[in-house]
Amino acid sequence: METVDCIIRAEYLLTMEGDLSVINDGAIAISSDTIQDVGTFAEITKKYSSEKVLCGKNKVVFPGLINTHSHAAMVYFRGLADDIPLQEWLEKHIWPAEGKWMSAEFVDDAVGLACLEMLKSGVTTYTDQYFFQSIAAKKVTKIGMRGVLGAGVIDFPFTGYASSVEDYFTNAENLINEYKDDELITPCIAPHATYTCSPENYRRANEISAKYNVPIHTHVAETQFEISQIKDRYGKTPVEHLDAIGLLTERFIAVHCVWLTDKDIEILAERKVGVSHCIESNLKLASGIAPVPKLLNAGVKVAFGTDGAASNNDLSILGEMSTAAKVHKAISGDPTVLDSKTALLMATKNGADIIGLGDKVGSIKAGKKADIVIANLNKPHLSPIYDIYSHITYSMRPSDIETVLVNGKVVVDNRTLTTMDEAEILGKAREWQAKIKE
Amino acid sequence: METVDCIIRAEYLLTMEGDLSVINDGAIAISSDTIQDVGTFAEITKKYSSEKVLCGKNKVVFPGLINTHSHAAMVYFRGLADDIPLQEWLEKHIWPAEGKWMSAEFVDDAVGLACLEMLKSGVTTYTDQYFFQSIAAKKVTKIGMRGVLGAGVIDFPFTGYASSVEDYFTNAENLINEYKDDELITPCIAPHATYTCSPENYRRANEISAKYNVPIHTHVAETQFEISQIKDRYGKTPVEHLDAIGLLTERFIAVHCVWLTDKDIEILAERKVGVSHCIESNLKLASGIAPVPKLLNAGVKVAFGTDGAASNNDLSILGEMSTAAKVHKAISGDPTVLDSKTALLMATKNGADIIGLGDKVGSIKAGKKADIVIANLNKPHLSPIYDIYSHITYSMRPSDIETVLVNGKVVVDNRTLTTMDEAEILGKAREWQAKIKE
Repeated sequence: METVDCIIRAEYLLTMEGDLSVINDGAIAISSDTIQDVGTFAEITKKYSSEKVLCGKNKVVFPGLINTHSHAAMVYFRGLADDIPLQEWLEKHIWPAEGKWMSAEFVDDAVGLACLEMLKSGVTTYTDQYFFQSIAAKKVTKIGMRGVLGAGVIDFPFTGYASSVEDYFTNAENLINEYKDDELITPCIAPHATYTCSPENYRRANEISAKYNVPIHTHVAETQFEISQIKDRYGKTPVEHLDAIGLLTERFIAVHCVWLTDKDIEILAERKVGVSHCIESNLKLASGIAPVPKLLNAGVKVAFGTDGAASNNDLSILGEMSTAAKVHKAISGDPTVLDSKTALLMATKNGADIIGLGDKVGSIKAGKKADIVIANLNKPHLSPIYDIYSHITYSMRPSDIETVLVNGKVVVDNRTLTTMDEAEILGKAREWQAKIKE
Repeated sequence: METVDCIIRAEYLLTMEGDLSVINDGAIAISSDTIQDVGTFAEITKKYSSEKVLCGKNKVVFPGLINTHSHAAMVYFRGLADDIPLQEWLEKHIWPAEGKWMSAEFVDDAVGLACLEMLKSGVTTYTDQYFFQSIAAKKVTKIGMRGVLGAGVIDFPFTGYASSVEDYFTNAENLINEYKDDELITPCIAPHATYTCSPENYRRANEISAKYNVPIHTHVAETQFEISQIKDRYGKTPVEHLDAIGLLTERFIAVHCVWLTDKDIEILAERKVGVSHCIESNLKLASGIAPVPKLLNAGVKVAFGTDGAASNNDLSILGEMSTAAKVHKAISGDPTVLDSKTALLMATKNGADIIGLGDKVGSIKAGKKADIVIANLNKPHLSPIYDIYSHITYSMRPSDIETVLVNGKVVVDNRTLTTMDEAEILGKAREWQAKIKE
């Protein structure tokens, strides 16, 4: 009998491996930060013993959810401006607010709130595009979450962060060098979009991505406005343009992909580009609805992203799953598309794959890191239970997430963050609110 | 100084009256089941005192949410069958399950679970179409919720409830006679749909509705399949058909209204028919998306319904608000449609108006019944706060609803039902699950 650090028992265990069948009364043996073994509770307890055995009845256990696109620090602009056109939203509200407030201190405090919200809704890894990522990395590490932090690049300087365009690349390389062997942080580079980054800046970002083998993460084909701008400028679609300048590889994460031609979809499939689908943000900004069933049929890996809380207005991947699974049925007229298993696969394994962490997280499998979510099913809105996948996709809410492990460590224990003081994080949000509101 | 039974204090008080402006540090004075006065906390406490003062800081208070369409007892079929076409869903899963299980005992137990779920998500009134409503009425009364219970009518008998079609009408009149002066229950009549009810049965239902002045509640234009069936049978759209047989009056609640012509919209507006919009069910069954912005522009009153949990898969009106406010923006390409104030108005005042309870509930106003929701804003996903309407529509979750009053009585106190044992209700759901699963 081998002793392990922790055994997690589950009435329903979803590994998201193989044929996705449910392990009833399942268990996971965890040693340090790693999943050592997976099976039924009877099998696991024949081989392993532990002083720490988590949960049991009425619990479902599944891999930590992966948020493949966000601007975490923008959580401080949640609800600052809603129900207005995109350009007005950006130009009159978001950009002025960022210009006025974005700073190392702002990012430090805001990222704390974003991570708290994400962890308590079962998100264990988030992928980000923003500035001051070395500050963010320290907070993400302190709070104990996994972050794929993309240092932003844009064609014009940003006071306080990049006094010249050169600085974006310097900051990105510094971030990558500092965190390239980190346990929790995956540094990467994140040019903003084809309409704000020149081909030259994209090529430089791609060289850095190739040199260090880190992801490159950018907005693609979000709005019709963007499509017409890129057509005017380059005579191409954004996907064709990025392909022509050599950007599309497996390291590339294409965010949004709302307006795609059939040829664009072929290109994305051929180049094995991963797509981050941010349906709630796209709906709320009236950008449109990405052709996800077509992308999946073409063999493109699609995962979910929340985008920033200023346009969503939350950071819940459970919400994205439910919205996407429902909306794509009505849009395609086919109730079989994006079924509940596919939705959870996109939120876990596909998510890890497209951000380059497929070997490390995204499923519950011996050898992978223990990023695990335990949810409580003993709730009115989750009763009765016939199909556990259906419940996770269509009925589960962030408040059902009870316990969360990242890298083998319990970071949320019975809905309480173990690594930082929640009241302090909320208090800081109220302080910033008072300043920003003025 | 007058003594009242209860004073509710709120950091943000939304009455949903007048210009919808927020009362900061507001208060409500309640005597017995009725709202006696509304104002700032300073104003109210100058005039009234009470031994019971509820809440204060970090709380938002708004009228109880109104669910204008459901089949509450179907909560026991939640997740029984998903991701399959509508006809297969109905014919192979739902109808056989109803045929096998629907009974007085089933309805009694299932309605308990549905009411528990609704109350804990801030829904204080629900409108229903089902059978055994006299059984449901007793459970709704016991749990302390408000119900507009529609006795179903359909062209063929249903063993155990109606041995002939005549029985549907007898059951409906009995229900109406028993509950017509009830405090919590509004009895009504609910023919199923134009493709399952003959013009003759619609006319008889309408006579009963007129005789007792109670609502008549039916499915209209839900699917394209229905549109073509009614076209074949009557040479008309469902709305034209119902208008031709004299059904469309202010007492009429038209549920779904997904497939409407411009002429249909004109007719609905002219006849002052209320529309129950069930977007999540319509999306999930791939039925389509109702033209809500057009209906609102035409002056039609639209409110939200969850439909049954078998097709949704929950009974949350907050969820309907968020989904509708986002989806209609993308469909219309206009981010200003269905703004957050409109969404809350639809979920409260419009809801009460279309089900004939506009004088009694739906807003916080002296003389109306005290159906009131208190939500906790001290949450990561509700921080910071700039626009309270935005937060309720786009960021609030059922778990933020802390305390709920119906008819002046606290039925949910700090997330616990006060009127029945929650564990017993969940236990019954597990018992039925075991039977139904076999």
